[in-house]
Amino acid sequence: MHEILVEEGILSKNDEIAGENRELLRSRGVYSINMVSSPGSGKTTLIEKTAGLINARLKVAVIEGDIETDLDARRIKKLGIPARQITTGRACHLDAHQVHHALPWVFEQDGTRLLIIENVGNMVCPAEYDLGEEMKVAVMSVTEGDDKPLKYPALFTASDALVINKTDLIPYTDFDMERARSNALRINPALRVFETSCVSGAGLPEWCAFLSGMAEAGMTPGVSAPARP
Amino acid sequence: MHEILVEEGILSKNDEIAGENRELLRSRGVYSINMVSSPGSGKTTLIEKTAGLINARLKVAVIEGDIETDLDARRIKKLGIPARQITTGRACHLDAHQVHHALPWVFEQDGTRLLIIENVGNMVCPAEYDLGEEMKVAVMSVTEGDDKPLKYPALFTASDALVINKTDLIPYTDFDMERARSNALRINPALRVFETSCVSGAGLPEWCAFLSGMAEAGMTPGVSAPARP
Repeated sequence: MHEILVEEGILSKNDEIAGENRELLRSRGVYSINMVSSPGSGKTTLIEKTAGLINARLKVAVIEGDIETDLDARRIKKLGIPARQITTGRACHLDAHQVHHALPWVFEQDGTRLLIIENVGNMVCPAEYDLGEEMKVAVMSVTEGDDKPLKYPALFTASDALVINKTDLIPYTDFDMERARSNALRINPALRVFETSCVSGAGLPEWCAFLSGMAEAGMTPGVSAPARP
Repeated sequence: MHEILVEEGILSKNDEIAGENRELLRSRGVYSINMVSSPGSGKTTLIEKTAGLINARLKVAVIEGDIETDLDARRIKKLGIPARQITTGRACHLDAHQVHHALPWVFEQDGTRLLIIENVGNMVCPAEYDLGEEMKVAVMSVTEGDDKPLKYPALFTASDALVINKTDLIPYTDFDMERARSNALRINPALRVFETSCVSGAGLPEWCAFLSGMAEAGMTPGVSAPARP
């Protein structure tokens, strides 16, 4: 009980800072997304491919959240995309305060229009922490099984889009795409679902068209008016 | 800072109850393991196969930790293995207190010699919570990538054994087994590493021989004398 009360205090403080982040990002014309998944779903590769496809049209910057190492930020920088690592130490999720401290760096990257935040690999805790993003994107890979939306509903409820990744591996698993989609939509009927393979490239154009369209319109899903004036 | 102090209080209370769990389980001759991984690494299938191979020799009972649903407990019960579901609600890991409440149920299952606890799918938080087990077992699947031990070191440091699962999928990924092993052993040189496929059955006999040997000897890794008198 005590744990929950303390946690609620932390969450309300987090939400306050997240709101400030959102205002700051909007005022600079930067659209932001927060990508959440369990470890190994292929988020970093998906971000590499996404940035590669979108960057010519909308300049991208990336914040990488990890418990340890800056391996992911280094991968992104190799592509010529600005990337900033936040190592969280023991913490199992990014919080709004950590992102707040990285915003001056974002604004130093001239012309950035899209900020992609890769959260710590964890399907549970990051679901509860708003970072100030316009859109939360859940990523799951087909090898994780089609029951995951039912077992980790908080993430699927909190997300606006779901990317089902590594579809090239479907033939070698018992993953049922229709069951995965229907499990996800049962939890959250408003989810936009995309199917991608970063090996074959399948589905990446659709996902990137959606993302760049949302960013250009400044749309926050669930909010009918554009986020930016 | 406040968050960390509160957390340390919770952890020390957890450790106290975990110690009680361990004494209770030892006094009844039940050997216990705590299996931790990210969602979708194949823990439940691994437990199904493990229980199937071991149960004739050592009677098995299973505690299933999940945020929501009793899908996993139902899968285990279908095999005729007693299983108890703990749904954690918002909590991203099992704690010793929850397991404590399930122990009377364990002791009602006549002749149980091996208790397998499947933790919530999360590679981060469960690493810090001792449940009273003799052995913590990390599970990772090859599709998660060979860099995971470096990125989630707490789990690999806290574990006594590592099962690298879904080896049948290696040909379809860029997973490098030697790199995964060396990354894991760099974090924890004492790790016992097993390679398994629940599709082909490869590696399951070795893993089960190790586990049943440890259980029969009542061995706690890192402790030279048997755990039970």
